[in-house]
Amino acid sequence: MTSVSTQSEQINDQAKLNDKQINRLPLLRTIQTPADLKKLSIDELPQLATEIRQAICHQVSQTGGHLAPNLGVVELTIALHYVFDFGHDRLLFDVGHQCYPHKLLTGRLDLFGKLRTSEGMSGFPEPLESPYDLFSVGHAGTAISTAVGMARGDNMTGKEDRKVVSLIGDSSIANGVAMEGLNNAGTLKRQFLVVLNDNGMSIAQPQGALASYFDHVRVNQAYGDLKKRAREVIERLPGGHAVVEAYHRFGEIAKAALAHDHMFEHFGLVCLGPIDGHDLPTLIDMLNEVKDINRPVLLHCKTIKGKGFSFAEGDATAFHSPKPFVVEGCRVEVKSGGRSFTTAYADAMCDMMKTDDKIFAVTAAMADGTGLAKVATEYPDRTLDTGICESHAMDMCAGMAKTGVKPFFAVYSTFAQRALDQIFQEVSLQGLAVRVCMDRAGYVGGDGAVHHGFMDISIFRLFPKAALLASSDEVNLRAGLEFMRQYDEGASFIRYPRDSVASVPLEAQTPPYELGKAHLVRPAKTKRPDVAILALGMTVYAANEAIDELEYQGYRPALYDARFATPVDIDLLRELIEADIPILTIEDHTLVGGFGSAVLEACNDHQLSTSKIQRLGMPQTWVRQDSRSKQLNDHGLDAQGIARRVRQMLETPQSKPVTSKKKTNV
Amino acid sequence: MTSVSTQSEQINDQAKLNDKQINRLPLLRTIQTPADLKKLSIDELPQLATEIRQAICHQVSQTGGHLAPNLGVVELTIALHYVFDFGHDRLLFDVGHQCYPHKLLTGRLDLFGKLRTSEGMSGFPEPLESPYDLFSVGHAGTAISTAVGMARGDNMTGKEDRKVVSLIGDSSIANGVAMEGLNNAGTLKRQFLVVLNDNGMSIAQPQGALASYFDHVRVNQAYGDLKKRAREVIERLPGGHAVVEAYHRFGEIAKAALAHDHMFEHFGLVCLGPIDGHDLPTLIDMLNEVKDINRPVLLHCKTIKGKGFSFAEGDATAFHSPKPFVVEGCRVEVKSGGRSFTTAYADAMCDMMKTDDKIFAVTAAMADGTGLAKVATEYPDRTLDTGICESHAMDMCAGMAKTGVKPFFAVYSTFAQRALDQIFQEVSLQGLAVRVCMDRAGYVGGDGAVHHGFMDISIFRLFPKAALLASSDEVNLRAGLEFMRQYDEGASFIRYPRDSVASVPLEAQTPPYELGKAHLVRPAKTKRPDVAILALGMTVYAANEAIDELEYQGYRPALYDARFATPVDIDLLRELIEADIPILTIEDHTLVGGFGSAVLEACNDHQLSTSKIQRLGMPQTWVRQDSRSKQLNDHGLDAQGIARRVRQMLETPQSKPVTSKKKTNV
Repeated sequence: MTSVSTQSEQINDQAKLNDKQINRLPLLRTIQTPADLKKLSIDELPQLATEIRQAICHQVSQTGGHLAPNLGVVELTIALHYVFDFGHDRLLFDVGHQCYPHKLLTGRLDLFGKLRTSEGMSGFPEPLESPYDLFSVGHAGTAISTAVGMARGDNMTGKEDRKVVSLIGDSSIANGVAMEGLNNAGTLKRQFLVVLNDNGMSIAQPQGALASYFDHVRVNQAYGDLKKRAREVIERLPGGHAVVEAYHRFGEIAKAALAHDHMFEHFGLVCLGPIDGHDLPTLIDMLNEVKDINRPVLLHCKTIKGKGFSFAEGDATAFHSPKPFVVEGCRVEVKSGGRSFTTAYADAMCDMMKTDDKIFAVTAAMADGTGLAKVATEYPDRTLDTGICESHAMDMCAGMAKTGVKPFFAVYSTFAQRALDQIFQEVSLQGLAVRVCMDRAGYVGGDGAVHHGFMDISIFRLFPKAALLASSDEVNLRAGLEFMRQYDEGASFIRYPRDSVASVPLEAQTPPYELGKAHLVRPAKTKRPDVAILALGMTVYAANEAIDELEYQGYRPALYDARFATPVDIDLLRELIEADIPILTIEDHTLVGGFGSAVLEACNDHQLSTSKIQRLGMPQTWVRQDSRSKQLNDHGLDAQGIARRVRQMLETPQSKPVTSKKKTNV
Repeated sequence: MTSVSTQSEQINDQAKLNDKQINRLPLLRTIQTPADLKKLSIDELPQLATEIRQAICHQVSQTGGHLAPNLGVVELTIALHYVFDFGHDRLLFDVGHQCYPHKLLTGRLDLFGKLRTSEGMSGFPEPLESPYDLFSVGHAGTAISTAVGMARGDNMTGKEDRKVVSLIGDSSIANGVAMEGLNNAGTLKRQFLVVLNDNGMSIAQPQGALASYFDHVRVNQAYGDLKKRAREVIERLPGGHAVVEAYHRFGEIAKAALAHDHMFEHFGLVCLGPIDGHDLPTLIDMLNEVKDINRPVLLHCKTIKGKGFSFAEGDATAFHSPKPFVVEGCRVEVKSGGRSFTTAYADAMCDMMKTDDKIFAVTAAMADGTGLAKVATEYPDRTLDTGICESHAMDMCAGMAKTGVKPFFAVYSTFAQRALDQIFQEVSLQGLAVRVCMDRAGYVGGDGAVHHGFMDISIFRLFPKAALLASSDEVNLRAGLEFMRQYDEGASFIRYPRDSVASVPLEAQTPPYELGKAHLVRPAKTKRPDVAILALGMTVYAANEAIDELEYQGYRPALYDARFATPVDIDLLRELIEADIPILTIEDHTLVGGFGSAVLEACNDHQLSTSKIQRLGMPQTWVRQDSRSKQLNDHGLDAQGIARRVRQMLETPQSKPVTSKKKTNV
């Protein structure tokens, strides 16, 4: 067994690669396709692994991105491409943030320099980039199920010779969809390999009992002593006969690695391992032996998240997806931006929890991303991380609310949608006051289409009594959370972006939130505004900046912080419409069913004309990775775009009602 | 051990209970609360079980309802109420269609006669009926997670003496949310009992490898021989130390029943059983022993679905949730209604699959409910039931579509929402042509609020390229499915209600579907209609009937089958609006973000006045169980309601644009 564990220090010294160095990766530079990889000898592969790590660490230190997850799967990825032919076979990534080595081995080194921008490489698998990427993913737990579909589809279309492999982490595999997938994979009667990348870390610390199970499963250092158990294991498996058949086709290594009493054998998979996921020769031997087994197999590999760099191994949570950082000798510094909404949220939660002992804070594996890690430090007994289980987390909150506790579930907007059915049945139908705090609402920047928080308003405003707030800054975030703390008629939601809060807020204080009431933050310079801007969330700031320009140009807009996406402020709308004042709604959310649509509906219900209402928001298109500011600019949601839209609105006759061609007496 | 297996024939003879007989249930009539149950001796309980079965069978034969699931849990429910005090302790039902015995033991015998109507008893747990019902449920997999929340909440609020029990079936437990719940339950450090009701049947036949695992686990007839393994099992459990402590508190029966190598012990639960779920004395002894264990315990009980009636035991699928039926000697006849959309769908699928061998049909445990059982008979190799795994099923479809297969996923509208995140990421973002066929769209009648298909349009029209159709009758269902078969630009959806197709359709043939195009099915009696009705799905028929009345009254409406909820027919809208013709949209779907909202949005985007558009649909309220026709009537979605609305619309000045109070130059 070759161990690469001693590489850490060696690579650490080279972490400060400059742009020239990245062009001096002698082996990696030769690889345009996996066919080039196969030309290398097994002895050369550890050097290739080192180069891949260098490239990744250098690039992420420059642009930010996922670091530790990618460092952990370098050998696994090399071995997979060395053994399989993924031009023909199928490789599916779960979550996908561990795809950098795969991308570097499939011809994307040149795109790597512009990681997470629209001209460069996506940080997630992306079929638009390469036929080697099958699914554009970013949410956890999906790979096994889509792989089952591809396996069945290939069988049906006569391409059953295509091997199907999915790569999934130990935290993702505890997600409900993944477990459903495993349970169904177990019924397949063909080759189907699940590689379990067990780094024992998940995104933060693993949660749930399964994590503790994984902890207790040790790498088999000596396979020999397990051999005698192999047949016994085989006989206990569901569908034993088929397994016995498969067993005879196992090579010695696979036979030896048969897991004894592995959890997932109950799902009908032949379970092998755990084996060392950094041991290239063993990985390659093992994969060669199992690739032809016509039965679902799970290969359990133990890896080290952040492998190869001591700072990343030592703090794999901080280096899961860091911002740009510098390595100065043994000191690593992550460059920080302004004060984030996330931090503001964490501080607001801590303050509320100080005075209200009924509050309980929940996250689903995003303790760092949502700020709950900080809350957990102050209130460890009133904070819980469920692991990547948004559905369970929401239901747990429902159960807690039923007992009179006030659960606050901190979750990315894009992951909250995974608990829609729970919000419907277990929360809203029961009239329970679960509070959902949605970070990363709107465009998220570099994570791209798989992570934008674009649909939370459309889906969560469906339910009776739902209150959905959006925060423009820290003052409003706090006021909004205080409203939610007191709101007990149903579920409440608050959304805020992956952005910094204004260092100088528009208002140092803001009046308390009142259900469904907007707030005038900048009156027009005349008694009568020529347009009323109803901006939601942080678009208030962009609109405010736009108004600086518009006022200079002679326009006289009034700016409201809408505060609530639902219910909307029908009194304000009536007042504006009856005064014939045009209205522009702005949201960093899809225009389909979003805040603007809620305004249209409310006006229609109240027989108020919508002819002078226009809606600005995210278009119904997939928006790729880039900086958040670029995304806002591209879609007219920054100051410039808002000013332009207001001018168009006021300069053209489009805001007049359409004139009827034929007059009637109706 | 007392077996009730010989009761079958005895009860069978009494199945034809009349209304007087239901009042002659000597033991059951004495029970108003579980306190009354506790006054009975254990010896009297089998007689009580018999009476409960008689009551259930009689009532369901009269009104329809869930039969076999309830017959299977009679003893389990009696034993739970006999041992626990659920006025104080917590009992949570998964799915909830097995709650009839519970309701009969908690004072609802009088409501039972009007089962599944608004004046009577809901077929699911309903907190509005009784404090013994904690959550109004109907979707699978939620109980354990909400129970975890209640356990944590009770701990936090100082009520940790309240025991928490959840009751879940073997098919539900394979749902992803349930598995997430189990995994998190395993981390609790307090009493927490999961009762696994393993009837080996699920709703239809169980799917997935787990089902085969359950098949192989046999009831321990002699507990003694397992005793010697108990300590060994205990030592292998995660958190072994705590278990050993718990073990010392086990009674003899629990010690003996410790499961060897039970799947769920990996989730951190102490697993007991399987034991006979119809053996009342053993159940009671066992529950008494485990109720004080301060650790998560899973008690695996084997039961017989439909227990007590040979016809229900013999065909538990047909008698899962039958329509009213009669028992004539040994012949049981289920009363049937007209030709359902479900049957029409199954026939249409079979016909399409005959000519297109790329089509693959998928269901998630609803083979009978969606008609796929019939499809599976003709095309067993091209039909698959994934079990209660909507998320997995959707992802599997995505994988299949990726290989060029044409998956058609038949699913109830209310369950399709469980796969929203999969539709978003794994289907729509990839541009994959997965076809989702949504039965039970709109009001579903007796199943009530947990099952109405009210939000599919709002949530699925969010994605680029999505096409969402609704079918008014069989002719249109077939034409719509044919459109979907050919539509390959993205996901497509079709919705149809829990209703019968018109025996005489409005049109014997209908022109082929064209993306986003409505179809004029009944022109106005004048050249110029005084209102254009855009009806979606089966509301076309109600509107048509309304027009009969309206024409008689002198109105001249035109009726369009909207066909598509998205994209909407903007050309038609423009034409109507430019001609100043009022428009009424009708949908059996929520008005929040639904078809009518899509119309408002499209008009707003195209600067068309919406002042003369009105929307009719489901209100944003929870609508309880009742007949579907009553629900439609209550909410103005039948002919009568539509005619009334049209008259209101045309008789009042409300369709005129609001007059501005202040005229300006804007």
